[in-house]
Amino acid sequence: MGTDEFYLNLCLQSAWQNQLITLPNPAVSALILDQYGTILSLESHQECGKPHAEVLALQKAYAKLSGDCEILRLSDSAQIHQYLLKCSQNLFNKTTIYVSLEPCGSHKCGRTPSCTSLLKALKPKRIIIATQDRSQNAKGGAEELEQCGIPVTKAWETKNLTSIHQCANSLLYPFNALQTKGRFLLYKYACRLDGSINGGQISSKAAQSKMHDYRAKADFLLLSGKTIREDKPTLDARFASLESKRPPNILILTRDNNFSTDAPLFDIPNREVKILNQINPTLQNINGFIMCEGGAELLSALQPHIDMLLVILQPSFNADFTLTMHLRLSFHLVHSMQIGEDLFLWLLPKNQPML
Amino acid sequence: MGTDEFYLNLCLQSAWQNQLITLPNPAVSALILDQYGTILSLESHQECGKPHAEVLALQKAYAKLSGDCEILRLSDSAQIHQYLLKCSQNLFNKTTIYVSLEPCGSHKCGRTPSCTSLLKALKPKRIIIATQDRSQNAKGGAEELEQCGIPVTKAWETKNLTSIHQCANSLLYPFNALQTKGRFLLYKYACRLDGSINGGQISSKAAQSKMHDYRAKADFLLLSGKTIREDKPTLDARFASLESKRPPNILILTRDNNFSTDAPLFDIPNREVKILNQINPTLQNINGFIMCEGGAELLSALQPHIDMLLVILQPSFNADFTLTMHLRLSFHLVHSMQIGEDLFLWLLPKNQPML
Repeated sequence: MGTDEFYLNLCLQSAWQNQLITLPNPAVSALILDQYGTILSLESHQECGKPHAEVLALQKAYAKLSGDCEILRLSDSAQIHQYLLKCSQNLFNKTTIYVSLEPCGSHKCGRTPSCTSLLKALKPKRIIIATQDRSQNAKGGAEELEQCGIPVTKAWETKNLTSIHQCANSLLYPFNALQTKGRFLLYKYACRLDGSINGGQISSKAAQSKMHDYRAKADFLLLSGKTIREDKPTLDARFASLESKRPPNILILTRDNNFSTDAPLFDIPNREVKILNQINPTLQNINGFIMCEGGAELLSALQPHIDMLLVILQPSFNADFTLTMHLRLSFHLVHSMQIGEDLFLWLLPKNQPML
Repeated sequence: MGTDEFYLNLCLQSAWQNQLITLPNPAVSALILDQYGTILSLESHQECGKPHAEVLALQKAYAKLSGDCEILRLSDSAQIHQYLLKCSQNLFNKTTIYVSLEPCGSHKCGRTPSCTSLLKALKPKRIIIATQDRSQNAKGGAEELEQCGIPVTKAWETKNLTSIHQCANSLLYPFNALQTKGRFLLYKYACRLDGSINGGQISSKAAQSKMHDYRAKADFLLLSGKTIREDKPTLDARFASLESKRPPNILILTRDNNFSTDAPLFDIPNREVKILNQINPTLQNINGFIMCEGGAELLSALQPHIDMLLVILQPSFNADFTLTMHLRLSFHLVHSMQIGEDLFLWLLPKNQPML
């Protein structure tokens, strides 16, 4: 593995930790090396509205390079920008910056100032970018940096970085789906090593907490009437590790409205509950990040609409279980990460176009 | 994550790539930082009889520090040792060396010279070690290094390195089982996301090749009479990526000898085929690295004897399959790695004593 690929891979591994949590922003990480090649910082974007990965990495690297730790007290992106512009002088001129996604262009009109304008002012020695930002809001950063004389290595134009470029695109899939289709549908499926899904809560507490983080970021949680009928769930985000534990709005997919409304989910305040009596065309009219939780049956029914599958695998066997699944489907495994006792597998349906 | 933990983790991730392949030696990786903290090398022990991880990492780091690439032509451990002792002068005095296992002590009587005596001569600034070597052949390296005045950070005596120390012990499990019990029994189980195992070859070509590497290193391959009867397998190591494609000896577990000897496996030259009519006490008398390949039934039967489970997970669902498994067992997931399309999950049975 070459040096650029090695450091970009560290960025990607790190960024996956915040997958979905940054939505509607992309999950991004940045890593900074000093003139000798020492890692100064590896930082990830945390949540929409908070500083971008580049800003956090520059903030930490500045403190290390200058010894001035005052900057570490700042959490507002505009304030960190200003501090860096004012104080960093030529401190970054010999640094190398790796970033999993093209820095946002200076025309950008988001909640935080543009990373490209900051990088142009700080003039690092070289910037290496894993993949392009194609969104109208933020694109064009790499070109701007080059025009300003900063050498930019673009993985999508570099032969031995093809594979890491593909990995960066997989990381970006949820963001790109929202950008291009206005909708991202994630199916979450929890099971054991033998495929069994019986016996109530399968996943560990840590995995459940991560799932509640995702719920807090979802626009809608989609479930079957059967789940409501049998499990009488609450479907909030009370175990989320995030500050916001906002309960998601609910979509119930049911042919015959055969469920009672005494499940705890109906008692959660400030939530919308919608009933869908069919998948087509109703589902297509719903926008945003939709997370589905369910078993094999709902997975089969929704299969053509699923953008990404998240399997939460509990490393155990549970005797004497029979699973009937009318589904024949192959996936590309794009990432796996251990959360508590469980393994999170991120999968893209095969033959799905890359966005 | 602290700096020491970060670099030790890079070592562990790297060492897992050669898990089992280094047997009867442990899987070990070493990483060297220069005086500024730049990564000079990250190298892994490849196979028994070849240079240890420390030697490979020192070899590459020497070439980078000195600009003398002549050393890279050497592949014999004793020759690299001599070259380093003769030419490196004080080149390593400011380097920091991370290693996933305690370097072998100078009393060692193996095929390659001792890493501790080499490190003592090269006098790096600091050495950080993830776990102890308890084998009679090689133990005592850390103490020797300290006695010679080199600062050593031992993860097993360092509070914030407890978790990485545990991870290093899991990596070492196969080696330690062979050292302490004389036997390491790995069960390999291939399945899909829904637990299905039907339809012949499940795993991808790349996964199969890795499995054949493991077979080439196994002392015995254990199978059920049913597998021989139904699959008529060859059970060699022809797809191994290693130089040696030695076919493993075979153990057939069968109650009634109900299999014919016309399976291709019986035609492989230079292989021993043993028949076991019962598990106890016959299996206990067989020493070495035993790899079992089979389905749910053999897994259930062998369960109390299994040291480690390797699940090779194909990311797909295969319709309408019913699996009956009379097994209720929980595991600790100790590592996962993607090989080709598949995911290799390394699992230790719960309630199993750490060696």
